[in-house]
Amino acid sequence: MKLGATFPCDMIGGQVAKVIESRNSEYPVGSWVMGHFGWRTHTITKPENEKFCGQKPYLYKLPDFGDLPVSLALGVCGRVGNTAYFGFTEICQPKAGETVVVSGAAGAVGSHVGQIAKILGCRVIGFAGSDDKCEWLVKELGFDYAGNYKTTNLAEFLKEAAPKGVDCYFDNVGGEISSTVMSQMNNYGRIAVCGAISGYNETDPEKRKATMVQGYIVGKQLKIEGFQVNRFAERTIDGINQNLKWVREGKLKYKEHIYEGFESADEAFIGLFRGDNIGKSLVKVK
Amino acid sequence: MKLGATFPCDMIGGQVAKVIESRNSEYPVGSWVMGHFGWRTHTITKPENEKFCGQKPYLYKLPDFGDLPVSLALGVCGRVGNTAYFGFTEICQPKAGETVVVSGAAGAVGSHVGQIAKILGCRVIGFAGSDDKCEWLVKELGFDYAGNYKTTNLAEFLKEAAPKGVDCYFDNVGGEISSTVMSQMNNYGRIAVCGAISGYNETDPEKRKATMVQGYIVGKQLKIEGFQVNRFAERTIDGINQNLKWVREGKLKYKEHIYEGFESADEAFIGLFRGDNIGKSLVKVK
Repeated sequence: MKLGATFPCDMIGGQVAKVIESRNSEYPVGSWVMGHFGWRTHTITKPENEKFCGQKPYLYKLPDFGDLPVSLALGVCGRVGNTAYFGFTEICQPKAGETVVVSGAAGAVGSHVGQIAKILGCRVIGFAGSDDKCEWLVKELGFDYAGNYKTTNLAEFLKEAAPKGVDCYFDNVGGEISSTVMSQMNNYGRIAVCGAISGYNETDPEKRKATMVQGYIVGKQLKIEGFQVNRFAERTIDGINQNLKWVREGKLKYKEHIYEGFESADEAFIGLFRGDNIGKSLVKVK
Repeated sequence: MKLGATFPCDMIGGQVAKVIESRNSEYPVGSWVMGHFGWRTHTITKPENEKFCGQKPYLYKLPDFGDLPVSLALGVCGRVGNTAYFGFTEICQPKAGETVVVSGAAGAVGSHVGQIAKILGCRVIGFAGSDDKCEWLVKELGFDYAGNYKTTNLAEFLKEAAPKGVDCYFDNVGGEISSTVMSQMNNYGRIAVCGAISGYNETDPEKRKATMVQGYIVGKQLKIEGFQVNRFAERTIDGINQNLKWVREGKLKYKEHIYEGFESADEAFIGLFRGDNIGKSLVKVK
C-alpha cells in the first residue's frame, strides 16, 4: 500500500494520508487513513506493521468526513479528540448541573473538554494563559467563565465562578493551579489528570516537587482515591463479621494497649503522640 | 435504654457498652452495642437519636464475639477494621501476586491492611517509624519487608523489596514517602489515601504544600486518575464518530493553525512554546 501523506502533526509524525496505490482490498485507492509514519511525504507499508506507543497495528481508515477537512483526524476527530472525549467522560463521569474546571483550557484537549462539558449540561470554568484565550473560551466556545492564571487570583476567581464548589476537574497542568482547584472541590469530586505541563521544564527541585504527584499519576495512569469509612456505613456489620472471622482463624493479629480508668486518660492521650503504643489504644472506664 | 459503658476510645467517645436496662426489645439487657456516646460511664438514650459524623443512627448491636474481647469492636472489628478492610479491598482492588506498600504500617489501620494483603496473597511492604515496629510487622504479622522511614533510603529499599514495582499503595502519611512510593509504582497502580499525617502538624508552608494534595484527597474523598488515550484504543473509531457528530451539529468548535510545507516545521515547533496558536497546530506537507 502506498500513501500520499498530507498532515504530519509532530516530530515523530502522526499523519493523515490518502491511499494512492494498494494491493490490500480493505484499503482501496482513494481511502484516507491515520497512522504514525514519521515526517515524510510518501509511505509504503502494510497496516499490520504499523505501531505507536505500544499499540499495534496503529493505522486505521477514517470514517467519511464528508465536506469536513480530513485534517480533523489529527485533532478533534483523532487522538486529541479521543483524549478529551474518553478522558473526560470516562474518568470524570460528569453529570448535568455539575461544575467542571479545565486547566490548560485553550489547548486542543482543554478547549474540547470544556465544550463536551457544555454539551452535557455542566457549568464550565477554564483557566488559560492570556486574556485573548480566555475571551475565545467564553465568547466563541461557550465556557461560563475563563480566568487568566497569570494575572488572576484563582482562589478568589473560583469562589465566584463556582459558588457551589467544583465537581470535576480536568487537569492538564498540575502544580499550584491544581492545588487551588482541589481546595475548592466538593466531596467525591473526580479529577482526570491528562498532563502536568507546569513541571515539565521546571528546574528548581523544590518547585518541581509540587508537580511530581501529578507527573506520576499521568505517566503511570495511576488511580488515587481518598476515602473515609463512613461511605461504607451500610456494610458496617459485614466488615465486622469478615474481620472477626479472620481473627478467629488466627489470620488477623492485633494489639491492644489498654489503660485502666478515667484517670489514665491524659497518659493515654499523650502516649499517642509519643508513639508509646503499637496497635489500638483504649481506656477502660468501667 | 440504659448502658454500662466499657471502652471509650477517643475524646469524643466511641464506646462499647452493655445494655443494663432496656425498654426496646431489639436491645435486650445483656446485649453489647457500639456507639459514640462521649466520655462517660453510663448512658441513657434511644438508638434513633444517636449520630456520628453525619451518620444517624450511629448505634449498632455487636455480632457475637464469643470468647474474644468486646473491645475488638473499637479496633479490628470496628471502625478501624472497616477502614482497613473496605478501604484496601474496595479502593486498591488488590489481586493475588501483586505488590502492596503500606505507609504508617504499624498503626491500627496499617497493620490491619498489611495482614489483609497477606491473606489475599500479595507481597507486602510496610513503612514505620522504629526498628521495633518494623520487626513486629515482619516477625509477628508476616509482612515480607518493613523499612524504618527515619533511617532508611526508601527509594533504594523499595527497589530491592519490590523489584517488579508496586501495584497497590495504602497511604496513611502523604508527603515525601508517598512521592517515593509513587515513583516506583507500576502502570495502572491503585492508591487508597486514608490519611496525610506527615502534614497535619507541619508549620513550614513550603513543606506543608507537599502534603496538601493528599490532604485534599482524603478530606474530600476525591478520586484522581491519570490516563493516556491508548487505554481506549479499541474504541478509537467510536470516539471519532462521536466527535464528528458534534462537529457536524455545530456543537463542537475547533481551530486549526496550518503551516504550509516541510520548510515551516521549525516555525511551527517554536510557535508551540511561544503560545502563538490557539487550537491544534498542523504542518501540511503535500
